[in-house]
Amino acid sequence: MKSNIVAWLQEGNITIPTMLFSEYRNLNLNETELVLLLNIITFIEKGNEFPTPEELSARMTVSIADCHDMLRRLIQRGFIEIMDQYSNEGIRFEKYSVKPLWERLVDQFLLNSQVTRQLEQKTEET
Amino acid sequence: MKSNIVAWLQEGNITIPTMLFSEYRNLNLNETELVLLLNIITFIEKGNEFPTPEELSARMTVSIADCHDMLRRLIQRGFIEIMDQYSNEGIRFEKYSVKPLWERLVDQFLLNSQVTRQLEQKTEET
Amino acid sequence: MKSNIVAWLQEGNITIPTMLFSEYRNLNLNETELVLLLNIITFIEKGNEFPTPEELSARMTVSIADCHDMLRRLIQRGFIEIMDQYSNEGIRFEKYSVKPLWERLVDQFLLNSQVTRQLEQKTEET
Amino acid sequence: MKSNIVAWLQEGNITIPTMLFSEYRNLNLNETELVLLLNIITFIEKGNEFPTPEELSARMTVSIADCHDMLRRLIQRGFIEIMDQYSNEGIRFEKYSVKPLWERLVDQFLLNSQVTRQLEQKTEET
Repeated sequence: MKSNIVAWLQEGNITIPTMLFSEYRNLNLNETELVLLLNIITFIEKGNEFPTPEELSARMTVSIADCHDMLRRLIQRGFIEIMDQYSNEGIRFEKYSVKPLWERLVDQFLLNSQVTRQLEQKTEET
Repeated sequence: MKSNIVAWLQEGNITIPTMLFSEYRNLNLNETELVLLLNIITFIEKGNEFPTPEELSARMTVSIADCHDMLRRLIQRGFIEIMDQYSNEGIRFEKYSVKPLWERLVDQFLLNSQVTRQLEQKTEET
Repeated sequence: MKSNIVAWLQEGNITIPTMLFSEYRNLNLNETELVLLLNIITFIEKGNEFPTPEELSARMTVSIADCHDMLRRLIQRGFIEIMDQYSNEGIRFEKYSVKPLWERLVDQFLLNSQVTRQLEQKTEET
Repeated sequence: MKSNIVAWLQEGNITIPTMLFSEYRNLNLNETELVLLLNIITFIEKGNEFPTPEELSARMTVSIADCHDMLRRLIQRGFIEIMDQYSNEGIRFEKYSVKPLWERLVDQFLLNSQVTRQLEQKTEET
């Protein structure tokens, strides 16, 4: 009993900005793309920084070929990027970065704040 | 600049068990249903415990009618439930509970642990 | 077994910016004050927005009188503030806000970023 | 402005079971020990799995010698343990594990649940 709760606890959590859920649609992402991004974030947090289409497809209701296509389009549309890294031993490896996603989300957040402020000013003027 | 970061911080985060992302497919949920559940959890955390199909649809790429249908089916299939509550003033109101989802996820987790243990035993015996 | 994990899950988590742990000392907070603030945040997240010195002391190794003093000094020093609120029924109540803490933390973060940038410029010039 | 929010976001968060804040006193931990443990957890999450007393002291209001003593006593009292690990290149290194802390916390949680249940039974009998 105890060991099961400890095991559960060690599976861990993933923490996501609430805004991603209220704004993904405004970023022109659909639900499948959002879950693919959330899965990539989860893999990265667990130490696998370059999950393959096979690994992503295995936990999604999406075929390997479709995962591959979605990854390619998310890179082209500027939501994720592939970074070249070098290990301590000088071996080159690739990893995903979701920094572009956060930048898009912050852009959207700042746009929303600005619109809110403009609407408030208009209301005060009248 | 500063006020924007503070505003961002106050939007807050949502914390999700990692397992939900690796196991939703095994719970027979698809990506759209998963995101609907994540949106309900986000609304509840923000204090709106009974989001309407309209509110859910407004942030999803799913029509109001389809949100309504998905909610009905998620209740029928035992992932969410509607609870009756009474306010301090004795007024009855309804709210969603995602406790059934967590129960299903824990079932899946215990099943996985058991299978892992059985496989380890088999390996030791041979 | 299952019900225990579900009960554990429902106890929930609290999500804290990593920076608070690396910078509280630079904000002139000591460990006891930090834990008092973390306890206030935890109470607020659980729906008790104005925990008393008694409630805070009950889970700390600090007497009620000392909790009272620490709260007073944290307000004077601008880490927390007491807000007046009105319920739907027009009844006035008080609650704590930790927004001043986040503002201080963001100030510190921006200061750190600026110092880092200045050091990098100096390095490039030489 | 935007880059500052993205930088803030990338600093990340640490997620802690709410129970740790309500129960550390019952685990015979004081506030300084709790913050030391939280700092170790933060270092581990950031990829430094064996922070030194110097690194811990640098962000605390505790001297290096006192950090060293506290670490030693937390190991002796069974809250953290040092694990031997081997890298891919066969190099031995040490890291902290806070699994003992979670086990103690789960013990306390199960004890609380049991006491609550016994009190409920007593109330029903009378």
